[in-house]
Amino acid sequence: MAEEVKLFGMWASPFSRRVELALKLKGIPYEYIEEDLSNKSSLLLQYNPVHKKVPLLVHKGKPVAESLVILEYIDETWKNNPLLPEDPYDRAMARFWAKFIDEKLLPTSARIGQSTGKEQEQVIEEVHHHLKTLENLLKGKEFFAGHSIGYMDIAANIFFWFYVNEEISETKVLTAQKYPTIYEWIKKLKNIDAVKECLVEKEKFHRFIISLREASKSK
Amino acid sequence: MAEEVKLFGMWASPFSRRVELALKLKGIPYEYIEEDLSNKSSLLLQYNPVHKKVPLLVHKGKPVAESLVILEYIDETWKNNPLLPEDPYDRAMARFWAKFIDEKLLPTSARIGQSTGKEQEQVIEEVHHHLKTLENLLKGKEFFAGHSIGYMDIAANIFFWFYVNEEISETKVLTAQKYPTIYEWIKKLKNIDAVKECLVEKEKFHRFIISLREASKSK
Repeated sequence: MAEEVKLFGMWASPFSRRVELALKLKGIPYEYIEEDLSNKSSLLLQYNPVHKKVPLLVHKGKPVAESLVILEYIDETWKNNPLLPEDPYDRAMARFWAKFIDEKLLPTSARIGQSTGKEQEQVIEEVHHHLKTLENLLKGKEFFAGHSIGYMDIAANIFFWFYVNEEISETKVLTAQKYPTIYEWIKKLKNIDAVKECLVEKEKFHRFIISLREASKSK
Repeated sequence: MAEEVKLFGMWASPFSRRVELALKLKGIPYEYIEEDLSNKSSLLLQYNPVHKKVPLLVHKGKPVAESLVILEYIDETWKNNPLLPEDPYDRAMARFWAKFIDEKLLPTSARIGQSTGKEQEQVIEEVHHHLKTLENLLKGKEFFAGHSIGYMDIAANIFFWFYVNEEISETKVLTAQKYPTIYEWIKKLKNIDAVKECLVEKEKFHRFIISLREASKSK
């Protein structure tokens, strides 16, 4: 069955890793195709002509793009180990918060490295505002929606990147002191086999981020 | 049952109208609360502290925000007249294209009125690119997903706003000549009772857009 599912991804993309994690949690065999984003394969361009982006899932020859759309597709196609909760209201909350991560937390935190001085201070304050919202949301819970890892936890995998990235940044935003609940949750996730297999290699990721910064400086 | 469902909306918001249209298509009785966005009600702020935005659906005292999340919630809670198709792949496509409208078409088309000269020409070119994609997607189909109005058609209700707005703009982007399929689809939608009830009043909308423009000029 392995040839049925292909995933076009990029190792340092948290969006690609969301999909890999979902596939692993469901135990779905898949072929992984690593994309060079500076020289995208003709297959990727053919399957995803609108966004030309990873992750892209191809199932029985049919492409699905956009990580959150792919997660829902996976959950509806393979029913074992559900990612989304059963209750419509809980499902709406999971979707709402995943959207919050993609539309609020991610774009704001991406601006930290692109700004300096007063502007950077304001951006960091905004990021703290979003992080506090998630810290409060998670308080008293094991995972974002119940007792096992699910859709919202997978969407929040961005915290791993945040975490690794901060070790090479001068700005320390996501600290254990300020966000104890998020830190506890990260520890719990790291004990899950599927998550372990999807963690980014720290040194490799550091080198990647540094090379990205150098490249943007030389522009 | 009417007191069970409340919708906080704003008459000129296509996002609010998405939710109204879905409720009407399902035949769900609801109480509509018109919000003054310059002076939001304390109830709206209490129910939606994260975004403080309309539309907001409150069902049995529990709030759901974000129009596309609300549409899925409605579809999962009231199963009659399904909005999303049944097949997981068709559902993924509906979600993908709704996301495309919100993340590509809408932000780009909003920039038409905010730009002038060469920049505006480029923005318009980009909007045409997105519109052509949707024109091709719709070709040969009655509605975006099959033979009746659904999730993606509701998400695409933005075309009505586009359409009315263009009559007072100097730029004519969405023309019947360039987009015959979209025009045919708009005609079909206008024959549906629930859609008729959700159409914006043209003259009132014109006055609203003009007042918005005047307000932004005086800043």
